[in-house]
Amino acid sequence: MKASVLYSGGKDSSLSAILLEPFFEVELITFSFSLLPLEQVVSDFANELGFPHRVLNLDTSILDKALEMVINDGYPRNAINYIHYNAVKTLASTKPQPKDVIADGTRRNDRVPVLTNSQIQSLEDRYGIYYVTPLSGYGRSSVNALV
Amino acid sequence: MKASVLYSGGKDSSLSAILLEPFFEVELITFSFSLLPLEQVVSDFANELGFPHRVLNLDTSILDKALEMVINDGYPRNAINYIHYNAVKTLASTKPQPKDVIADGTRRNDRVPVLTNSQIQSLEDRYGIYYVTPLSGYGRSSVNALV
Repeated sequence: MKASVLYSGGKDSSLSAILLEPFFEVELITFSFSLLPLEQVVSDFANELGFPHRVLNLDTSILDKALEMVINDGYPRNAINYIHYNAVKTLASTKPQPKDVIADGTRRNDRVPVLTNSQIQSLEDRYGIYYVTPLSGYGRSSVNALV
Repeated sequence: MKASVLYSGGKDSSLSAILLEPFFEVELITFSFSLLPLEQVVSDFANELGFPHRVLNLDTSILDKALEMVINDGYPRNAINYIHYNAVKTLASTKPQPKDVIADGTRRNDRVPVLTNSQIQSLEDRYGIYYVTPLSGYGRSSVNALV
């Protein structure tokens, strides 16, 4: 089974990929709006971990809508969740294989970005993928101890 | 690092142990009130998985209190949570090593048994252990696909 891990270059998404590695064929996926030249930095991190890595572009209409949400809300939470949900959804809809795993680095107690149970259910049902968050069962201190 | 996995002999706790195996020295722990002769059956399952296994007794005062809760509540949820919390706590307090992991088979969307965030925080702080639920990031369908 393949697992595509949403990869930011950070500690949580790296550890998620490592936890999945013994059981899945892991690929790291970074979504970009191509506004900042971060791809190379993230690619270098991915190479150090030894996983294949791809950068995909996210439609800029998603960024436009997210910016509008931040301005209307006065805080970024909903906008970040919106971008995250659309990243998972874009990946789910472009994956060639159903029954594959899409994963990210969400930890226990993370307040944002978090998918709701109904969003997860809808993505799994619609695209036939499994959405997995390998760090959901780990708190901040256990993640720090493992890294 | 050692990981003690609360082990019922079922699918979820077995898969939790398997997910931890590449990263931890796993031991399976089954708590018993010694009322039913289930230990041998569970031990046989544990041996098939190839993990060391220990049966520990839980104080029968915990069972008495749990039965009282079922009768007062009219439903078993709080009583099951109470037994589960006390199993984790007993294990945390008898483990020789701090910084060890205590794990169980709680899945995403499990309603019971579930520790609250404040119970987890309190156990981690008081006993210096890490409480980990490797299946929290997996839904029922992904667990079934993996097993």
